[in-house]
Amino acid sequence: MVLNVALVGAGRMGTIHAASIARHPGARLVSIADRDGERASGLAERHGAEATTETEAAITSDAVDAVVVASSTDTHVELVELAASAGKAIFSEKPLALDSERGARCLEVVDARGALLQVGFNRRFDPSFRGVKAAIDEGRIGKVELVVLTSRDPELPPPGYIETSGGLFRDFAIHDFDTARWLLSEEPIEVVAFGSNLVDPSVGAAGDVDTAMTLLRTASGALCHINNSRRAVYGYDQRIEVHGSLGMAQAGDRTPASVVVTTGEAIHHSLPHRWFPQRYAEAYEAEMAAFIEAATNGTPALVTGLDAVRAGRLADAAQESLETGRPVAVGG
Amino acid sequence: MVLNVALVGAGRMGTIHAASIARHPGARLVSIADRDGERASGLAERHGAEATTETEAAITSDAVDAVVVASSTDTHVELVELAASAGKAIFSEKPLALDSERGARCLEVVDARGALLQVGFNRRFDPSFRGVKAAIDEGRIGKVELVVLTSRDPELPPPGYIETSGGLFRDFAIHDFDTARWLLSEEPIEVVAFGSNLVDPSVGAAGDVDTAMTLLRTASGALCHINNSRRAVYGYDQRIEVHGSLGMAQAGDRTPASVVVTTGEAIHHSLPHRWFPQRYAEAYEAEMAAFIEAATNGTPALVTGLDAVRAGRLADAAQESLETGRPVAVGG
Amino acid sequence: MVLNVALVGAGRMGTIHAASIARHPGARLVSIADRDGERASGLAERHGAEATTETEAAITSDAVDAVVVASSTDTHVELVELAASAGKAIFSEKPLALDSERGARCLEVVDARGALLQVGFNRRFDPSFRGVKAAIDEGRIGKVELVVLTSRDPELPPPGYIETSGGLFRDFAIHDFDTARWLLSEEPIEVVAFGSNLVDPSVGAAGDVDTAMTLLRTASGALCHINNSRRAVYGYDQRIEVHGSLGMAQAGDRTPASVVVTTGEAIHHSLPHRWFPQRYAEAYEAEMAAFIEAATNGTPALVTGLDAVRAGRLADAAQESLETGRPVAVGG
Amino acid sequence: MVLNVALVGAGRMGTIHAASIARHPGARLVSIADRDGERASGLAERHGAEATTETEAAITSDAVDAVVVASSTDTHVELVELAASAGKAIFSEKPLALDSERGARCLEVVDARGALLQVGFNRRFDPSFRGVKAAIDEGRIGKVELVVLTSRDPELPPPGYIETSGGLFRDFAIHDFDTARWLLSEEPIEVVAFGSNLVDPSVGAAGDVDTAMTLLRTASGALCHINNSRRAVYGYDQRIEVHGSLGMAQAGDRTPASVVVTTGEAIHHSLPHRWFPQRYAEAYEAEMAAFIEAATNGTPALVTGLDAVRAGRLADAAQESLETGRPVAVGG
Repeated sequence: MVLNVALVGAGRMGTIHAASIARHPGARLVSIADRDGERASGLAERHGAEATTETEAAITSDAVDAVVVASSTDTHVELVELAASAGKAIFSEKPLALDSERGARCLEVVDARGALLQVGFNRRFDPSFRGVKAAIDEGRIGKVELVVLTSRDPELPPPGYIETSGGLFRDFAIHDFDTARWLLSEEPIEVVAFGSNLVDPSVGAAGDVDTAMTLLRTASGALCHINNSRRAVYGYDQRIEVHGSLGMAQAGDRTPASVVVTTGEAIHHSLPHRWFPQRYAEAYEAEMAAFIEAATNGTPALVTGLDAVRAGRLADAAQESLETGRPVAVGG
Repeated sequence: MVLNVALVGAGRMGTIHAASIARHPGARLVSIADRDGERASGLAERHGAEATTETEAAITSDAVDAVVVASSTDTHVELVELAASAGKAIFSEKPLALDSERGARCLEVVDARGALLQVGFNRRFDPSFRGVKAAIDEGRIGKVELVVLTSRDPELPPPGYIETSGGLFRDFAIHDFDTARWLLSEEPIEVVAFGSNLVDPSVGAAGDVDTAMTLLRTASGALCHINNSRRAVYGYDQRIEVHGSLGMAQAGDRTPASVVVTTGEAIHHSLPHRWFPQRYAEAYEAEMAAFIEAATNGTPALVTGLDAVRAGRLADAAQESLETGRPVAVGG
Repeated sequence: MVLNVALVGAGRMGTIHAASIARHPGARLVSIADRDGERASGLAERHGAEATTETEAAITSDAVDAVVVASSTDTHVELVELAASAGKAIFSEKPLALDSERGARCLEVVDARGALLQVGFNRRFDPSFRGVKAAIDEGRIGKVELVVLTSRDPELPPPGYIETSGGLFRDFAIHDFDTARWLLSEEPIEVVAFGSNLVDPSVGAAGDVDTAMTLLRTASGALCHINNSRRAVYGYDQRIEVHGSLGMAQAGDRTPASVVVTTGEAIHHSLPHRWFPQRYAEAYEAEMAAFIEAATNGTPALVTGLDAVRAGRLADAAQESLETGRPVAVGG
Repeated sequence: MVLNVALVGAGRMGTIHAASIARHPGARLVSIADRDGERASGLAERHGAEATTETEAAITSDAVDAVVVASSTDTHVELVELAASAGKAIFSEKPLALDSERGARCLEVVDARGALLQVGFNRRFDPSFRGVKAAIDEGRIGKVELVVLTSRDPELPPPGYIETSGGLFRDFAIHDFDTARWLLSEEPIEVVAFGSNLVDPSVGAAGDVDTAMTLLRTASGALCHINNSRRAVYGYDQRIEVHGSLGMAQAGDRTPASVVVTTGEAIHHSLPHRWFPQRYAEAYEAEMAAFIEAATNGTPALVTGLDAVRAGRLADAAQESLETGRPVAVGG
């Protein structure tokens, strides 16, 4: 059986997902819907799919088994609910919703229909991050005690992005909140966050911070630190470090080359990948393969809507802590 | 303009090249020829190409601008000559010929027709190796003095392979002889080789060595060492180190993940890639892109038939040194 | 001129300092005082010094220019005050006092006498940490934005230690608070700390935590994270990472050997140094050399009593945050 | 029992050995002899030893149990023979003799007197190199197949040194020939060497090479490559790599600090140690401790005169290969 897929959204993430679906032997990319017809056509031609501007019809079409939602964030919940009502398997880009409560209601609709929903927390599929998770699950580092997550963008997003982004915690650190939950294997119950505006005054003018440090605590006492910045001039800095009772597991940055040049001044190593399409290339392919497999075999999603809602609530708590200057309790 | 390509050979290398051609926006994979019709069909279907067992017709077809020769080694020179005579641009897998003199005669035919010929020394396109070459070319390490190449396969080839391979130097170290010439930017004039049969007695029984160390010397006195083994249990070990008057440039192994697990016993890092399709994935894609670009624009090949013949002569000299126990002079 | 030094305390730190003084060409170790006469004699014989149990007489002796205080923590302030009153140059082990206010009063006595006082924050003299500080001071990473300090002991201190230690923040993280101030080049104004009892229940029974994460914030918005654990089975884990507007500077763990063993399972690297006398060997020697130089030349101490008091106040604030569950403001 | 030691030679190596003996609790540095009386006095004062210009009397003195010979190379054999005749335990700096046959005769004298003789191949005591040897001896990498040694000086020795040095192989690579024998655990039976004059024309004018690559072969077929240069602008480059049937063991360069500065251009690591006193500090201390222990307990030397003679014969063979252009057989 081949899974017939409709893709909604032909932007940056849609382009990545289209290629993954096209390469997968178990899936067929049936249609690509985008409000911008030219953008839809351009992408559809490269993959032998139909282009359309009729998103709703594309989603509910009988020719389609599964829907990949990669449109703008504000459309996610409604398209997911539509696809769920039409009985489709659904992959939705993150965040499911900027408003966690709206996301939770969407989840109720999905669950009521028994629909498969996988959310695009792609980092869980990164080979290096998976290796750390495997080391934990195999007991190689014992019981998890501390987690340190470093997550830094190479540079500020384009002007205008910050204003509608939902803020650093809900837009950017949301991935890290998910990674934290995944590695801790336990829900955080308390959050405290410090944030600053150091990279560019425009971010502060938009009411957001561009630099932040957050602490999480779980019921058993495991602790997690996340540091975020909108600036890392050397590239996309994505690292994790987990300390357990028997040792430490780390995943370092990935580089496009392994060149080392040693001169009288220093040993010069290649810089990390510059940005996420390169850094997480394998992860994007693997998350789509996991979705296609789950949708085909009726097995559960590896990253659920509940994961999205819970990461969202951690982001809400971090934002509240930033604003009130106090630690904030979150329901486990 | 789109370059119309015929692929000859649907085996391991043909499969890799087919995918690279299909992904490239400037090329179209027209046909795939293989003596084994089913193998041809299986690969052709995945890429929307025609399958055929009529190799000669596929090569000379008017619908074709360029030919990629990835069939068995003993067929290379004749197919390259046929394609040259038909006026096609040609990409040939390495080695062009096990017999360097036969390769040189093939080259005469190609040159007489003014055909473009690129040979599959893929390592020149590896991002890490290119980084080392760039460091040399930019003068960052000064004048090249010493080159050390480490080239080790993870395990023995399947039974029967060694007998018809042409021997370790012509079959396996041929890549390293090319890399040496490329990095030295100067022709070696003397070769000495030591070889042993340490990995498996079957290799010795087939009249070959499985472990070797070679030295090269150029006219200006630059020296190069190559070490080869048919066994490296930790993966495909492909490293280069170049010493110049101002410093050193190295390219290390590449790994599929950057996991580090630290316990009370040791710091455990991820192993290198296991084998060449993973290790040189970017290189295979880049060499085909370079060929498509050269064939489309009429620019020269980056790796020529002469490169193939000269690397072959170094392999001949190493084999002679191994057999006679003496250094062997090679024409520059 | 040779500096004549009296050492008080022949325990673990006294033994290290005695060797540094003996090796230094500009200093002479005159006497070693310890309540335990045998311990004093054993150490004094190795270095050709006089042994005594009369601490006060040793400190005030006219034959002595400088005093190194390495006795038990509860004696530091009184001995420092005595030495200051006697007009000696003083090196005191950290902490100056567990009670920051008592330390501040001691400092008043020292300052009133115009005595030189250097405090044993040895990490400021570690070549790797100094390299990070130099990178900051030279502007190589721009303006400092984030600091992450990892500071983990290999194992729990012996039974009974925790009870009188002053607690994780005042006893152990005190070094990190000093390092944070040194790297930030700016006073923290707010502290929040999460702590847990994960390593051993005996620590909790003694009213302390063995695992902690702390955040600091400065007036300009620079942020710092410190993570501490009384357990790191792989050795003494002492790392710093500083992010600035133009890049990142890190100091990693140091290892006694650079052995890498690569097998079919993994790449195995040597573990870090096991404990502080090895890890900070150069630092201990360098801090004593700096003290000898300052005392000889009348130049200021590189680590002052004020540094000790301010680090102590950060530790107090962290302890208060741990107890109240709230961020705590500290005077800059 | 304390071992009473006479040191002959107060130059660079004598200074290092004097400090090691003085620090060792089981030895006492009785006297330091040097033709240059001031040099002897200067060193002797720092360690509370007697200074003398009467070398022979110092060696044969009844107050002395052991002699450390660190005078100029041309005096080694005669002083070793004198000390052996006087019944002393002997440590001799390398090389025992530039002329291997003269060294062998000296060995006969030593053996006839049953004297303990340890030769200063300090690298066998380096913690990183010992770690590689241990990995071999413990069977972690299986049977040794290939050894690659990198041994490069930071810069040319001072003018005039080369002329009397004995040449690159006997003066410099002699350490590597010893390391090769030690790691191979088997005698080489054939040597081939390529050499060039690339660093400075003055070396060629003195009849020597400054750059060399050597291959060794043992009876069982294990192979070894050594590369040497009188120039490595980034520091003292001392690395070993051993390939066995089950894996690889490496010892990398050692650095004085672990600083990593990452900017928009590259990741910059600390350079290796600049020169041998720093790089091999632990090794010098450990070899003297081993000698003191062997001399005290009557146990065998870990590095014998025979080791010195055999390494010398490999150097002779390499020199002959360089001059004749042919591989040279050596008696196993």
